[in-house]
Amino acid sequence: MSKIDISTCYSPALLPLFDFSECLVVIIDIFRATSTIAAAMDNGAEKIIPVDNVEQCIELGNEIPNSITAGERNGKVVEGLQYGNSPSAYPGDFVNGKTLVLTTTNGTRLLHLVKDAPEVLSGSFLNLKATADYIKAQNKNVLLACASWKDRFNLEDTLFAGALYQALGDAATTICDSTIGASALYDTAKDDLFGFLKQGSHFARLSKYGLEEDMRYCCAINKHDNVIRYDGQSLIIPS
Amino acid sequence: MSKIDISTCYSPALLPLFDFSECLVVIIDIFRATSTIAAAMDNGAEKIIPVDNVEQCIELGNEIPNSITAGERNGKVVEGLQYGNSPSAYPGDFVNGKTLVLTTTNGTRLLHLVKDAPEVLSGSFLNLKATADYIKAQNKNVLLACASWKDRFNLEDTLFAGALYQALGDAATTICDSTIGASALYDTAKDDLFGFLKQGSHFARLSKYGLEEDMRYCCAINKHDNVIRYDGQSLIIPS
Repeated sequence: MSKIDISTCYSPALLPLFDFSECLVVIIDIFRATSTIAAAMDNGAEKIIPVDNVEQCIELGNEIPNSITAGERNGKVVEGLQYGNSPSAYPGDFVNGKTLVLTTTNGTRLLHLVKDAPEVLSGSFLNLKATADYIKAQNKNVLLACASWKDRFNLEDTLFAGALYQALGDAATTICDSTIGASALYDTAKDDLFGFLKQGSHFARLSKYGLEEDMRYCCAINKHDNVIRYDGQSLIIPS
Repeated sequence: MSKIDISTCYSPALLPLFDFSECLVVIIDIFRATSTIAAAMDNGAEKIIPVDNVEQCIELGNEIPNSITAGERNGKVVEGLQYGNSPSAYPGDFVNGKTLVLTTTNGTRLLHLVKDAPEVLSGSFLNLKATADYIKAQNKNVLLACASWKDRFNLEDTLFAGALYQALGDAATTICDSTIGASALYDTAKDDLFGFLKQGSHFARLSKYGLEEDMRYCCAINKHDNVIRYDGQSLIIPS
């Protein structure tokens, strides 16, 4: 089998530069959508429906039995929704067997931008190895798509892109400067991810809301062993 | 004096995210526009007029006495122009006292995108210290604007952004993830810039045209001591 070619897109605003019509796309929103998604699925959520806006979130929450609505803006639970976007807010006894209807600032928007790709995964440090193992078993080139912060490059999504590229080892190759840069940055940061990310803009933003422990959770590597796939409507664990 | 705030924009496609209406902007196109500009100015060119396209280049070349037209596409001198875009192609006996009319793929386009900033410099490793010293003497925040390659992130422009941020030392500060990332990457690469850049996409592209020595020249730090400023029409050494 030929090697898997890896590209990395640092911002949704740059997506038009990439042809991902035949790619597996991994969406990356470390702080915190894809980390929250990983945590909720690990704790037994049946599926997660990502939605663009709060109104749609409330509407679907009313329609779907056994569902929970969730979303934050500026670090606070949105009025009208039940829960926030904190990975630690979804323990098993609470989310098990339920459908989570989730709206986030950057992650959901990105997911909708790449929804026409042949396959879309949700990646985070929490399920790094599971995601890498799944990719190795496919025969598709990969686009690592960072959610960024309002289209601006961010460190945490980039570091995960570098980590995932490295986790693919000899199975992968790249001629993409963004991937090479992400991998070199990950080498610099990997011994103390949380410490490295403390200098980032998103850390400053979220720590104002008292979310340091949340971010520490998002930096835990391979805490879960689920791959998470988007089926065009919901995020699920493929059977 | 308060510290100079540094932002970095990795791609012209991301420029709309930045407000540089009160910033000093440094354009960066290491391979090779801003390096060529530095070399030609160091060798005594009176000024350099950057133009968007070949037709305009030829036209201005005919109008302006004592001028040279220059530009490359795909590593070759464009038909109708006199010289290429190689920093080593402009020795003193040849360019001294002349006006260089230059068209490049990415650098010229970027310059025109930022032309409304209060002040624009052309930066390269060749004139790193001169550029940093000039910035320190101003009282303006700074946007480091990478020309990139057809809007895609590239390693060489990013490394220079990191190098310039570091050269500003205590005079500068940042809350911009792109600047933090660039600085961390520069730490990784600085002991062997040329070696690091050998893994990049642009290196592969240009080395196909036999331009390795040209790229080595572009990686030489502080070879010149000119700051280069855009006066709205030409690149000049400010008096």
